[in-house]
Amino acid sequence: MLKAAIYHRPKNEFAYAIDESTLHIRLKTSKNDVHKVILVYGDPYDFNEEEKCWVSNKKEMTFNGSDDLHDYWLVAISPEHRRLRYGFMLENEKASLFYTEKGFYKEQPKDAGYYFCFPFLNKIDVFSPPAWVNSTVWYQIFPERFANGNPKINPEGALAWGSTDPTPTNFFGGDFQGVIDHLDYIEELGITGLYFTPIFKAYSNHKYDTIDYMEIDPQFGDKATFKKLVQKCHEKGIRVMLDAVFNHSGFYFEPFQDVLKQGENSRYKDWFHLQGFPVKAEEPANYDTFAYVPSMPKLNTENEEVKKYLLDVARYWIEEFDIDGWRLDVANEVDHSFWREFRLTVKQAKADAYILGEIWHDSMPWLQGDQFDAVMNYPLTSAITEYFAKANISTSQFANAVTTVTNLYPETVNEVQFNLLGSHDTPRILTISDNNKDKVKLQMFVQFTMAGTPCIYYGDEIGMTGDQDPGCRKCMIWDKNKQDTDMFSFTQKLISLRKNYLLLRTNQNFQFIDVSDGESVVMYRKKDERNEILVIINNNAERKEIAIPAAYQNKQGENLWDQQKTTLASTIEIEGDDFHIVMF
Amino acid sequence: MLKAAIYHRPKNEFAYAIDESTLHIRLKTSKNDVHKVILVYGDPYDFNEEEKCWVSNKKEMTFNGSDDLHDYWLVAISPEHRRLRYGFMLENEKASLFYTEKGFYKEQPKDAGYYFCFPFLNKIDVFSPPAWVNSTVWYQIFPERFANGNPKINPEGALAWGSTDPTPTNFFGGDFQGVIDHLDYIEELGITGLYFTPIFKAYSNHKYDTIDYMEIDPQFGDKATFKKLVQKCHEKGIRVMLDAVFNHSGFYFEPFQDVLKQGENSRYKDWFHLQGFPVKAEEPANYDTFAYVPSMPKLNTENEEVKKYLLDVARYWIEEFDIDGWRLDVANEVDHSFWREFRLTVKQAKADAYILGEIWHDSMPWLQGDQFDAVMNYPLTSAITEYFAKANISTSQFANAVTTVTNLYPETVNEVQFNLLGSHDTPRILTISDNNKDKVKLQMFVQFTMAGTPCIYYGDEIGMTGDQDPGCRKCMIWDKNKQDTDMFSFTQKLISLRKNYLLLRTNQNFQFIDVSDGESVVMYRKKDERNEILVIINNNAERKEIAIPAAYQNKQGENLWDQQKTTLASTIEIEGDDFHIVMF
Repeated sequence: MLKAAIYHRPKNEFAYAIDESTLHIRLKTSKNDVHKVILVYGDPYDFNEEEKCWVSNKKEMTFNGSDDLHDYWLVAISPEHRRLRYGFMLENEKASLFYTEKGFYKEQPKDAGYYFCFPFLNKIDVFSPPAWVNSTVWYQIFPERFANGNPKINPEGALAWGSTDPTPTNFFGGDFQGVIDHLDYIEELGITGLYFTPIFKAYSNHKYDTIDYMEIDPQFGDKATFKKLVQKCHEKGIRVMLDAVFNHSGFYFEPFQDVLKQGENSRYKDWFHLQGFPVKAEEPANYDTFAYVPSMPKLNTENEEVKKYLLDVARYWIEEFDIDGWRLDVANEVDHSFWREFRLTVKQAKADAYILGEIWHDSMPWLQGDQFDAVMNYPLTSAITEYFAKANISTSQFANAVTTVTNLYPETVNEVQFNLLGSHDTPRILTISDNNKDKVKLQMFVQFTMAGTPCIYYGDEIGMTGDQDPGCRKCMIWDKNKQDTDMFSFTQKLISLRKNYLLLRTNQNFQFIDVSDGESVVMYRKKDERNEILVIINNNAERKEIAIPAAYQNKQGENLWDQQKTTLASTIEIEGDDFHIVMF
Repeated sequence: MLKAAIYHRPKNEFAYAIDESTLHIRLKTSKNDVHKVILVYGDPYDFNEEEKCWVSNKKEMTFNGSDDLHDYWLVAISPEHRRLRYGFMLENEKASLFYTEKGFYKEQPKDAGYYFCFPFLNKIDVFSPPAWVNSTVWYQIFPERFANGNPKINPEGALAWGSTDPTPTNFFGGDFQGVIDHLDYIEELGITGLYFTPIFKAYSNHKYDTIDYMEIDPQFGDKATFKKLVQKCHEKGIRVMLDAVFNHSGFYFEPFQDVLKQGENSRYKDWFHLQGFPVKAEEPANYDTFAYVPSMPKLNTENEEVKKYLLDVARYWIEEFDIDGWRLDVANEVDHSFWREFRLTVKQAKADAYILGEIWHDSMPWLQGDQFDAVMNYPLTSAITEYFAKANISTSQFANAVTTVTNLYPETVNEVQFNLLGSHDTPRILTISDNNKDKVKLQMFVQFTMAGTPCIYYGDEIGMTGDQDPGCRKCMIWDKNKQDTDMFSFTQKLISLRKNYLLLRTNQNFQFIDVSDGESVVMYRKKDERNEILVIINNNAERKEIAIPAAYQNKQGENLWDQQKTTLASTIEIEGDDFHIVMF
């Protein structure tokens, strides 16, 4: 047994509470090495006086998927007194071993002190994201480009809607009235959450360079209009999430302007990370910035005044406008201490507000219950696009990448992860897919059958194209004749499918089946106490006859796409770039 | 290369800030598998436009020891802009591989997005324990048994000092005046920190069953006496740490008594975890308890009133009595959320107060900078006693266990870990060592040459014996004729040695040398920019000729024990159960 590759460590994603009485315990072993894992567990204080031995019970763990190098195992356990000591009994054909915090043993250690410990399941420490997020389908709006509903407030030099390609600096006058005007469209699509990139007073068209966090950018409308927008959304059952750019301010942020003018005498000099005077706002700047951009000075979120200001901002837009969540820009570069206070502030203002961090890499340090509810799930995005859109990776690499992602965080996190195929920071999914709409559909199908909360980038549902920023920020196409209505219907159907089947929204017993690199076919299943869903995807351009695993043959189920009864034979024919989804 | 065994994950003990500009990056590989590791690193935003490639630098990592299954590697790095992306170039004679967050590659990935990320070194997130702790030598006092200075306040039925063995329920009248009377003794020994087990009003002789957290137990004295005690300690440069029993109260805690009497009508019913009425204070209790002890009801630290009360307690003893630290009883069973608030409260009251959790197992979830400064380092205790006192493990098992412990937490944590050989919760070290004083000396020698902050349990320095509680809680022996004065002098000398050599108090380049199970000889070294310290321990009862590694032969150094110049030959003779310590 490959002991050096076996890994467990309490808390984080390996031991966590899924509710007020149940723990998930996970284990990682080398791939194809261990055949059976049994959890050995008990109360830390149960001691058999006669046998001078800790009292333990046993429960077999479930195989929870493989990636390139490892197998994963999972078990749920509800300790009577909310306290748990535990270890693992590992078996393969050659050996049987006990794995504890103190190492590996051939005989089961008798002393509770050897075992891993989850000392107490305290309710307040349970990771508890808002209940509504998992069933939400998001739509990301870049406000300058969604719809121009009030030309009177167009910014100076605004161009005619869609008259030309976007540049880093041009304007088209998108605004809140435009969004209000198209709420029926959004509702018709089936959307239940709107994520707006920044709406606060800023200089650029993307508004990530805030001038005033307490003011709406006048090109989008006034506060009354925004309030109306939120109200109308809520009437339609649509939540609203705003973008908080707290890592840095914009160049024209009043306190930064003051620092530029007053230098050392500015009362705001501790609001930034200045390295000298006079402050030099050109490359290389003598203060910390976002990346190397002098016009985006990094905010000193350790400073009490800055903290107070930003936490007031966080509270204000919830209390005054009733928004439902905050997406946090460049969240990984802001201190953890600030985010902890941010979470307390936000949840106090609205207990079920959603806190979403923009982090592209492994985010466990922010997802322990004290900071964010979720992060933007770019690792999943990458697995999907690398396989379906770019054909850069094999089927097994795709399956491995997805399994790695699903085992990276607790299930409770996975169920509210923000799953996207593209955003204002990436090329559009249709462009990435070389304009192959069928490939886009496959990717959306995967996105909508994964645990998490999916988000559609405005216009992807009508087949819009666009390369990396600024190309991906084109004006929304409202001319019905230029919209891909087939893509719209497909998206609508996917959304409705996801809403109807809770199992699609979780990763319960999620596993890839019969992964083979020879054929570009993906098969996976999910399973709860009552149902099992089987997904088969033909990622070849051509129609293909695909072998059905014996376990699913001659079993009656329902085709969830056409809602007809169906029985799988030993093979199934699937059209090129098409899929099949059955529930048993 | 055994890829499945290679492990790194940012934050926790694998990537952390040691100060406001420097990161430690660690890596774990399978034992004897990888021969060289080079850190590949750079700023996340450095991009070479011509080569379409992230700009990276290289720095070789240092081998940081081995345990049973793994090798450990370490490197310190100071990123110019406090931001870091990084990966590892691993080499052995067969292969060369790049290890990144996305997996293993033969060619170095060009995209920064593949790499591990330490997004920003924010000062406020740096783990920063009090500076004084590392150079402190603690002395643990069980107040009922240290000295009776004021017989007038003896508890009812107090027995004559040391007249009989301790039982779970008898009293001898130890008090604060007794401690004050013996401060010169404590100072003479070289102690710079006193850790008192609980002093608050309680029922038992151990006082872990608090009646009133705001009152001194009358058998110990009054508040004025305690204030005087702290003042006198401070005058002598001795810090004072108290024991906070916040997991549970005692049976006679007023709010619990109220719950027993008023049941559902008690205003304190949410202060505990009650499962029904009437409250039944016998086994099995119908409320959560410490272990299964009905007289120790678990406090509901999620309740706002309880939180306020306990945080007031935490603040009160610092603000009113100027204590320097809190040791937290059963710290692992209290919620993380409470401890985060506790830390903010304590550090606000005294910025350099020491927060020490009683946790016996792996404690990383509490040591991330937001909760504790350290925990009681029982895993180190166990390694030392299993090897030297009980001869239960081999030399390599001892070396492995110590290396595991030193690689379990960040170096910044290791340097303030509370290292003890015994306490009121274990048999005394001399008893564990089967009354072999030489073995005790070896163990204290190891304790005092390890990073951390060592603690002596009262009386161990004069050779007191005693089995598991209550045996280990005997009355301190004040009769000079019955004290082991040789042990006292040895302890004094060890303390003075440790104070004089900073290198002993850190784990800089700490490594075991020439570990062999055949001979019961332990050799380890530490090394900084200027000096190297070599330790050789003969754990055999007989005098032994020990081979000196070539690197240390014919090198002039100083014997730190007798402060004589010394040059090591190819072998050295060391008496049975003795040691040699040289600084080069």
